Amino acid sequence: MIKVRVPATTANIGPGFDAFGMAFQLYNIFSFEERDNGKLTIRGVERRYQGKSNLVYKAMLKVFNRVHYRPKGIYIYTDVNIPVSRGLGSSAACIVGGLVGANTLCGAPLTGKELFDMAVEMEGHPDNVAPAMFGGLVVSLGLKEENHYIKKEVSQCFEFYGLIPDFTLSTMEARKALPKKVFHKDAVFNVSRATMTYLALTEGRPDILKVSVEDKLHQPYREGLIAHYDEVSQKARELGALNTCISGAGPTLLAITTRDNDQFYAEMGKYLKEKLPGWTLLKLEPDNTGVCTDQHS
Amino acid sequence: MIKVRVPATTANIGPGFDAFGMAFQLYNIFSFEERDNGKLTIRGVERRYQGKSNLVYKAMLKVFNRVHYRPKGIYIYTDVNIPVSRGLGSSAACIVGGLVGANTLCGAPLTGKELFDMAVEMEGHPDNVAPAMFGGLVVSLGLKEENHYIKKEVSQCFEFYGLIPDFTLSTMEARKALPKKVFHKDAVFNVSRATMTYLALTEGRPDILKVSVEDKLHQPYREGLIAHYDEVSQKARELGALNTCISGAGPTLLAITTRDNDQFYAEMGKYLKEKLPGWTLLKLEPDNTGVCTDQHS
Repeated sequence: MIKVRVPATTANIGPGFDAFGMAFQLYNIFSFEERDNGKLTIRGVERRYQGKSNLVYKAMLKVFNRVHYRPKGIYIYTDVNIPVSRGLGSSAACIVGGLVGANTLCGAPLTGKELFDMAVEMEGHPDNVAPAMFGGLVVSLGLKEENHYIKKEVSQCFEFYGLIPDFTLSTMEARKALPKKVFHKDAVFNVSRATMTYLALTEGRPDILKVSVEDKLHQPYREGLIAHYDEVSQKARELGALNTCISGAGPTLLAITTRDNDQFYAEMGKYLKEKLPGWTLLKLEPDNTGVCTDQHS
Repeated sequence: MIKVRVPATTANIGPGFDAFGMAFQLYNIFSFEERDNGKLTIRGVERRYQGKSNLVYKAMLKVFNRVHYRPKGIYIYTDVNIPVSRGLGSSAACIVGGLVGANTLCGAPLTGKELFDMAVEMEGHPDNVAPAMFGGLVVSLGLKEENHYIKKEVSQCFEFYGLIPDFTLSTMEARKALPKKVFHKDAVFNVSRATMTYLALTEGRPDILKVSVEDKLHQPYREGLIAHYDEVSQKARELGALNTCISGAGPTLLAITTRDNDQFYAEMGKYLKEKLPGWTLLKLEPDNTGVCTDQHS
């Protein structure tokens, strides 16, 4: 049995739209086995996800086709901990899990870079798959010729919290909300703030993070799609969050505090329980490792 | 006599529009003395710059007014090496030189941060004054309440060249060329490339710099204002430059090579001498120190 552990990821982090992604210690764990029965067996998910349209299986097929491998039968068990369609990289995790699992089943003919490129192709862009593969904070650039990325570890001085609503938001719907054109000054607004956010997170600069996690390219257009966005953000800041942002395409909000903020988790949890009982609060530690594989015979 | 040495600076560096600035080992050196003669004496510049409208003197006055200091007479000698109105931060150097010189004359009542804030106010934005003050590669963010910046040293693996035309381009004219609105995808284009450029320059990643120094927010609108832009850029790339960009608001072009490119300086110099004899080629080493003061009695 091959076990593949893939981290949850957040994308954008405010100004880093379509550029930044970061991994968390919240994992989907996929188990894979080749079987002699000629069947595809998928367990751990609802029946409607147990067929050939399963994303993990589709990713596996990409590898099998590329390396001309024909497995007799496939068994997949999925232990899903990353909330689905909430902006925490669940689809990227399935893609990366399937690719890495299949590659391991075949004796690892493909390199990490090749698997990364395949993951980007499947997902459409690299911002979630890059940290799912490599961990840490990743800035990536998907070009036709090649995908580029730089990964750095996240400073220990921050604490991250996912504020997860009880409704989903599809990435496609969130993309549709974006305008065709923006003011030049709004474009410029994001440039310095994105770089400052990357450096603040990796160099441990809460003073900078407090002012840099601001955005004019996606959040203003998406906030309206997330019920209670304003009040939850405001409450997080009142409780000492340095800043909040939309995780990926939403609807999850990410709150960032300094590590010495002892009250945030309890107070924010209390607030949600009282006011928005459908919401979940998750403490998310950065994962600096990325996908990893564990093989048992 | 107080001597103040201020580095030349480049701003933007491709995608980092209104955000990035970097200092070079090319200096204006200003000498200051308080005299008893009740006069303002400025030497080292043309007669028309020897009056009260001199930018160095105007910067000094800001300090004198702020700390309520009334000098009897002022002598300024300016040893100007930074080309004027070429996009290499000559005005930022004059402002920083005047502020730091006057502050030193008064016994240094103001902090570096206070002088930086005053310099930003005079210049209008922080991208040149920040590296002129602090050296290195600086990403800055000028807010109403406060100016923020992060400085890092530039990796030794790069070499920088200024390709300086024989004509000037005013920042105001270059600003007028910018549109009110841009495509959302062009705004997004710059976000990852800016962060990658900052990291490539500070972490020594020529592979990344080669793809990241691209811009859609100012260069496409300004290239047409710089005669021979295309041919000079293309020649620089043919000679192994990783990339070229407009230095600040132009018209100087900045070419970046790896340090092991032995032919670039000679070959580019030969090309300019033959084809564009009015242009100057300057090898620019990064300055990681910023403004510094030398006081002799």
